[in-house]
Amino acid sequence: MNEPQYEFDLELETEHIRAILNTDNLETFRELFLNYPLYDQAQLYRNLSPDNRLKIYNYLSPKEMSDMFEILEEDVESVDTYILEMNKQYAADMLANMYTDNAVDMLKQLEPEMIPKYLRLMDDEQAAHLREVLVYEDATAGAIMTTEFIAIKANQTVRSAMAILKSKAAEAETIYYIYVIDSKEQLVGVISLRDLIISHEDKMIYEIMSDRIIRINVDEDQADVARVARDYDLLALPVVDDNNILLGIITVDDILDVMHEEATSDYSGLAAVDVEETTMNPFRAASKRLPWLITLLFLGMGTSTLISRYEGLISNAAVLSVFVTLITGTAGNAGTQSLAVAVRKIGLPDTEKRTWFSVVMQETLTGLISGLITGLTITIVVGIWQKNFILGSIIGFSMLAAITVANLAGSLIPILMDKIGFDPAVASGPFISTFSDLTSVLIYFNIAKNFLDMLTQ
Amino acid sequence: MNEPQYEFDLELETEHIRAILNTDNLETFRELFLNYPLYDQAQLYRNLSPDNRLKIYNYLSPKEMSDMFEILEEDVESVDTYILEMNKQYAADMLANMYTDNAVDMLKQLEPEMIPKYLRLMDDEQAAHLREVLVYEDATAGAIMTTEFIAIKANQTVRSAMAILKSKAAEAETIYYIYVIDSKEQLVGVISLRDLIISHEDKMIYEIMSDRIIRINVDEDQADVARVARDYDLLALPVVDDNNILLGIITVDDILDVMHEEATSDYSGLAAVDVEETTMNPFRAASKRLPWLITLLFLGMGTSTLISRYEGLISNAAVLSVFVTLITGTAGNAGTQSLAVAVRKIGLPDTEKRTWFSVVMQETLTGLISGLITGLTITIVVGIWQKNFILGSIIGFSMLAAITVANLAGSLIPILMDKIGFDPAVASGPFISTFSDLTSVLIYFNIAKNFLDMLTQ
Repeated sequence: MNEPQYEFDLELETEHIRAILNTDNLETFRELFLNYPLYDQAQLYRNLSPDNRLKIYNYLSPKEMSDMFEILEEDVESVDTYILEMNKQYAADMLANMYTDNAVDMLKQLEPEMIPKYLRLMDDEQAAHLREVLVYEDATAGAIMTTEFIAIKANQTVRSAMAILKSKAAEAETIYYIYVIDSKEQLVGVISLRDLIISHEDKMIYEIMSDRIIRINVDEDQADVARVARDYDLLALPVVDDNNILLGIITVDDILDVMHEEATSDYSGLAAVDVEETTMNPFRAASKRLPWLITLLFLGMGTSTLISRYEGLISNAAVLSVFVTLITGTAGNAGTQSLAVAVRKIGLPDTEKRTWFSVVMQETLTGLISGLITGLTITIVVGIWQKNFILGSIIGFSMLAAITVANLAGSLIPILMDKIGFDPAVASGPFISTFSDLTSVLIYFNIAKNFLDMLTQ
Repeated sequence: MNEPQYEFDLELETEHIRAILNTDNLETFRELFLNYPLYDQAQLYRNLSPDNRLKIYNYLSPKEMSDMFEILEEDVESVDTYILEMNKQYAADMLANMYTDNAVDMLKQLEPEMIPKYLRLMDDEQAAHLREVLVYEDATAGAIMTTEFIAIKANQTVRSAMAILKSKAAEAETIYYIYVIDSKEQLVGVISLRDLIISHEDKMIYEIMSDRIIRINVDEDQADVARVARDYDLLALPVVDDNNILLGIITVDDILDVMHEEATSDYSGLAAVDVEETTMNPFRAASKRLPWLITLLFLGMGTSTLISRYEGLISNAAVLSVFVTLITGTAGNAGTQSLAVAVRKIGLPDTEKRTWFSVVMQETLTGLISGLITGLTITIVVGIWQKNFILGSIIGFSMLAAITVANLAGSLIPILMDKIGFDPAVASGPFISTFSDLTSVLIYFNIAKNFLDMLTQ
């Protein structure tokens, strides 16, 4: 006989839970519900009606609810609905029971004026912890760190460190790294639980700790934090201020969320659509995508207006219109390549960050070289096809210029957006294509107009 | 005084290491080099010349080298160069010292006929472990798992489990989860080191272990593995076969790599460029991007050929050419949105995977709705601008049809690619845009031709 795998069918289990809630049997509910893994508890909870959720608030303690919310908060955008439907004291108790990083994430989803109301209902120490983290800017190390870490002094034995660890294990977010601080709370060492376990109990901490500590400044960008954790294979990173005072830690479960968030936002931006879109309803999907489509449509009207100024030219040489999409399309492709590379380079940590000028220069040169080869190719192809090498040269030269400009725009625009504080990844792909349509058309018809005499000979 | 942060300047430190290697002072080298974090050792090593690297192979043991390579392998594509320049026995010893998952990753970068040569130089047990993992298909749970885990029986005390753990801590890849197996090696429970540490030493393992185990089948896709780890906040996942026999574990450091790999490949695909491109040389950058640009250029020639069949029509009504880029651009944007959503939906784990038919239907309907609204908008705008509602209707109706077809293609093409075994994300964005240019032009000029009489009244 095989051991059955743990299987979870959300609809089936929701039905089950709903039936039990209707019998108002507290004990049966608790026994069943608390036996699910936390992630599955969270899925069930979200799947229930508000009425059923209100019952649950009576059946589970704020502490039990907080365990589930530690997992829930990562996935859900409408956490505020849940908090607001709870009794205020219950919600405050739940938040106070959570790790600071997660509690802060949830508080930030409320209206700003609501936050102090919940903080006032907590005990002073917990509220102070939350206020400490609430001040950090979104998407920095400070905003995703937790203050529940284990810090010890170097001047003690492994035995006494293990005793501290056991006593704090219940409340710390991770016990797998222990940080060593001096009397001024400055970070001076780190030791893994693994090293602690395999060391002799009489060894001193300063003998076995590592003093080459990979640490993160509290103001560092969260993408850099993820990169460091991945490079150095760490399960947690200590966060310090400019004076090396240990403020908190960032654990790997948060790093996974950051990576997912960053990757999804880059990818969504390149396509101007929220790829996390989970709706199966085409009306709702269309209503989410239309704002971008319509915005880009009006930008595209700029290109149409421009072409309309060359209607006379096109009437005389309709063959020109044959190559418009080829030039705009190819320049758009090159611009998108530049954009994707530039957005990634902007995202690199400071140590590796190239100056914006060198990124733009490099992309423009790459465009020039790509444009030369693409332009030469199309000159020959069109020349042979249309038996007209002047036309071929017009197309080829336009393509060279259009690709160079597209690469310049593809790298310069995200850098400018970054400089003025916008996320360079938002809807960037279609925006660059549409912008590049405009410049490509401008280049193409201007070159064509000047060669028109030769062309119509 | 502030404690100095640990700073690492690659060029400076490389110079330093190089100078020491030139003095042939083994002790100084070892003392300095082994004191760097492993990731920084790896960066230095990669930055050195082959001559210098050969010296290092004499200075460091295969075990020391293996520690560094555990970190190195994740980042480097040309690991084979390093292995091939080593003495074969040295390389085999190094590989034998690594965790199976990483050793297998490295072996897979060699020519297939080389692999048995290295396996024969290892002891039988280690070689058998590697052969076990080598058989699994790339990007499955089996291919990224390691066989160095800690498994114990349920019928023992916490004290005896801790003793086992201490004895195995040196070789296991993680000691933070201990797996509980029965006499048939089937997985029956899991316990975290944290729970072990806070439990009374006389407790029995079966009393404190969890038997609702989140586990992964060995054939599961690596993207699903990452998703489960992220959802359930786990530091390691057990991998079992169809009979629930515990085969290995996947640790969170590998999950981070998988997430990075999957995100980068999706993003790169949408832009038809390798966004990990690190070269600062525009010639090299251009040579990497040109294959896609030229391929897409020739696809784009299809659209030009198609338009050339309508040259007569355009000569008579040059105004038609004004709206070509608007229709191709907008349909391309909509198609890219569909594509990005469809690629993500294809990537979802089986339990959440919609059937391909429902994804395509939903996207096409979304296209129809977006097309109706976009089409209506442009009908009015063009009608007013050109004072010609027949022209407006031609543009609007073409846009409706072009967007619907683009959404159909944007969702159907990646699904077909997935079905026939291609990665649906490769160069998908520009390919869909270019394809949608073709269908949009075909739709537009056919509609226009049929309305031409009305238009030229």
